[in-house]
Amino acid sequence: MDFDLIIIGAGPAGYVAAIRAGQVGLKTALVEKADLGGMCLNWGCIPTKSLLESAKLYERIRTAAQFGIEGIDEYKLRFNWRLARDRAQRIVRRLTRGVEGLLAKNGVAVISGEATLVGPGQVRAGDRLLMAANIFIATGSRPRPLEAPIPAELVVEVEQLVRPAEVPQQVVVYGEGGNALEVAQMLKLSGGTVALVAAAGRLIPAADPYLSRFIQGRLSRDGIRLYLGAAITGHYESGILAGGERVQCERVINCSLRQAVLPPVECQLDLADGFIQTDEYLQTNLPGVYAIGDVNGRSDLAHVASAQGLHAVNVVKGIRRKMEQRHFPLNIYSQPEIAQIGFTEPELAAQGVDYKVSEFPLAANGKALAEGTLDGFVRLLSDKRFGEVLGVQIVAAHATDMIGEAAAILQMEGTVYDLAKVAHAHPTVSEIFMEAGLVAADQPLHI
Amino acid sequence: MDFDLIIIGAGPAGYVAAIRAGQVGLKTALVEKADLGGMCLNWGCIPTKSLLESAKLYERIRTAAQFGIEGIDEYKLRFNWRLARDRAQRIVRRLTRGVEGLLAKNGVAVISGEATLVGPGQVRAGDRLLMAANIFIATGSRPRPLEAPIPAELVVEVEQLVRPAEVPQQVVVYGEGGNALEVAQMLKLSGGTVALVAAAGRLIPAADPYLSRFIQGRLSRDGIRLYLGAAITGHYESGILAGGERVQCERVINCSLRQAVLPPVECQLDLADGFIQTDEYLQTNLPGVYAIGDVNGRSDLAHVASAQGLHAVNVVKGIRRKMEQRHFPLNIYSQPEIAQIGFTEPELAAQGVDYKVSEFPLAANGKALAEGTLDGFVRLLSDKRFGEVLGVQIVAAHATDMIGEAAAILQMEGTVYDLAKVAHAHPTVSEIFMEAGLVAADQPLHI
Repeated sequence: MDFDLIIIGAGPAGYVAAIRAGQVGLKTALVEKADLGGMCLNWGCIPTKSLLESAKLYERIRTAAQFGIEGIDEYKLRFNWRLARDRAQRIVRRLTRGVEGLLAKNGVAVISGEATLVGPGQVRAGDRLLMAANIFIATGSRPRPLEAPIPAELVVEVEQLVRPAEVPQQVVVYGEGGNALEVAQMLKLSGGTVALVAAAGRLIPAADPYLSRFIQGRLSRDGIRLYLGAAITGHYESGILAGGERVQCERVINCSLRQAVLPPVECQLDLADGFIQTDEYLQTNLPGVYAIGDVNGRSDLAHVASAQGLHAVNVVKGIRRKMEQRHFPLNIYSQPEIAQIGFTEPELAAQGVDYKVSEFPLAANGKALAEGTLDGFVRLLSDKRFGEVLGVQIVAAHATDMIGEAAAILQMEGTVYDLAKVAHAHPTVSEIFMEAGLVAADQPLHI
Repeated sequence: MDFDLIIIGAGPAGYVAAIRAGQVGLKTALVEKADLGGMCLNWGCIPTKSLLESAKLYERIRTAAQFGIEGIDEYKLRFNWRLARDRAQRIVRRLTRGVEGLLAKNGVAVISGEATLVGPGQVRAGDRLLMAANIFIATGSRPRPLEAPIPAELVVEVEQLVRPAEVPQQVVVYGEGGNALEVAQMLKLSGGTVALVAAAGRLIPAADPYLSRFIQGRLSRDGIRLYLGAAITGHYESGILAGGERVQCERVINCSLRQAVLPPVECQLDLADGFIQTDEYLQTNLPGVYAIGDVNGRSDLAHVASAQGLHAVNVVKGIRRKMEQRHFPLNIYSQPEIAQIGFTEPELAAQGVDYKVSEFPLAANGKALAEGTLDGFVRLLSDKRFGEVLGVQIVAAHATDMIGEAAAILQMEGTVYDLAKVAHAHPTVSEIFMEAGLVAADQPLHI
């Protein structure tokens, strides 16, 4: 036996599992054909968030006069994509080196090259056949190819977007998920002309419809044209056809729903809908072979992928618990940010739960006023009888960090009364949790 | 009986108590001689946070080139204090009107003028004698007069700082608390020359010494000269003498520790150290007379004052619980922000608790890298045997909102294992909680 564990793919599922496996004493190899960190670190979360940060700062600078800052000439102000991209690449390199260091520190053997699953316990990397008691497939996902009757040269994949020194200035973003929305806003905020075309009838189908309506309104006000429930049906000399209209653009950026990236396989690995089929312990049909992260279709979020990685290591070490995913946050790094955890209204309605919705607006919060970030709210969905918090939705400048508090409350099965009692400092934006808790307890304070 | 409850002072203790009292059916009057909202809303928290937001944006704009934003001429960039002040005043007016509306909505009679406590159940406002079953004194606090042998015209009180259209460009800030630190940084970031003189040997004596050391280092690096354990001993033609040195300045801004503001009293009200003495139910020695907020010396934070206001209304309504204040956060809106909740190291050491410190740096967090806000960390203090979280300290750009998650964990008596299990989205700064929880559980991930 060469290894206790071989992991195929070094994205957020694979590299996190490898670190933990090394820590708990498993002799571990990690095989990666491209870059450590995978999609998230190299082309996804990290570079897009870095570029979004630049774009958001650019927008805020244009409002600087409101804050009493003078001397900025709007006609000279320019978003230099190449420099913003360089910054994003420096951040990616720093984090990639960090992952490399962590793997080395925890004794993980990193093997560069493509891995083939030969069979249970057998992986071929290059021309070496490696034996291992356990194998994790963590090869991730990528956007589905754009199925539209338009020339291939019009289409840009997101991997191709964050690397070049230039971006097209007039684009159509195709897709309905958070990633499509982030790319659309990033390009719009940095000065481009953007339309968003989605097959779905609303943006972020995984979110509560209330959040979808909010962000659709916001994007429209910000000048992003929306074509929802629409397909790309063709092209013309200066653009594409979507929803029966001509939409002028240089390029279409493909942010379609994702499909699994499968490794070469020389045995009978069961799939479902193109993803590797797993049970609740993340095991495939093959003994000792697990699938973690996007490739199993149970996740399309980096943090869920990492959590699955840790979970599978536990299973290998004999801690057989089922993977419970209800309480993972859904974060969208839009402007303002959107975050959600727990159940949505349609989910609660479908379960027949008698629930209550309590909302508190940022416009009634002093710190949000001081920051100049008033567009947003918090919504609590709670059980009517006992007040258990069942879902939390936030729209706020820093919603993606604020959702951590809601996650803690859900993790500990807290009630709206607990939330109303959590001591919040004044003035903070997070006071809106307490205020919404008070609304839910029929003791509203600042509303 | 004219009222069930008369509240003297409309700051965060008084106005919040009045809203809640109205809600629970008490016939309530609120007497205020100056502006609704008190120190916090009119001269303290809200205007200083608004001005700090302007100053922080000004500083970030000077780093815009790093983010790929071009066309800003550093020589033309100017912080216009008057415009920033106008913005702060607009925010104050909006919030004051909001408080006015909330009081009206909840049926609170607002009486303008100075109130005298005549005796139990009796308040004189102007020339009217009002009778009430209960009286709350909520007259707040102000910085102690600066006791230094320097001319009075050199000294500026913080109330005088946020209103005028200009600020002195070369200042000494006197004081050691969060408020002194915020004022010093606000003036420095907006372009002034600032020295900080404090009688205490370290800044923020209420914080863990680790946090004090951090912020002292940061202020020094940012070019604020520090004179700790120093007194102002005199003046010379272009400044003052502090710690035996000449410190050039136009003005000294007084951010001394605070003393109670007492209403005129015509009866025997017991004081301790200049503050109104109260028991654990916030009752004074006089029957039916309570003291809430800064005036009782049990609080110098707006959110603690508000919580005391709510608490005292509960006591009046027959819910006799003792006021428990351990879990209120201490927030400093510095750059980066500082937030603390629960016990500090010296407090745990004094109690003989066997505790563990677990730290995770922002420099290992992807979102902090993307935001360009790497200076900071989270520290968990936990019980060694059972892992209960006993204290949390954060330094981060948005620490004052992030501490909400720690407050939720403490509120629910969570352990480091709970914290490590709370699902955090990637990439978020709040992942540092989970990472620190994993460090505490001896399963560090990204470090």
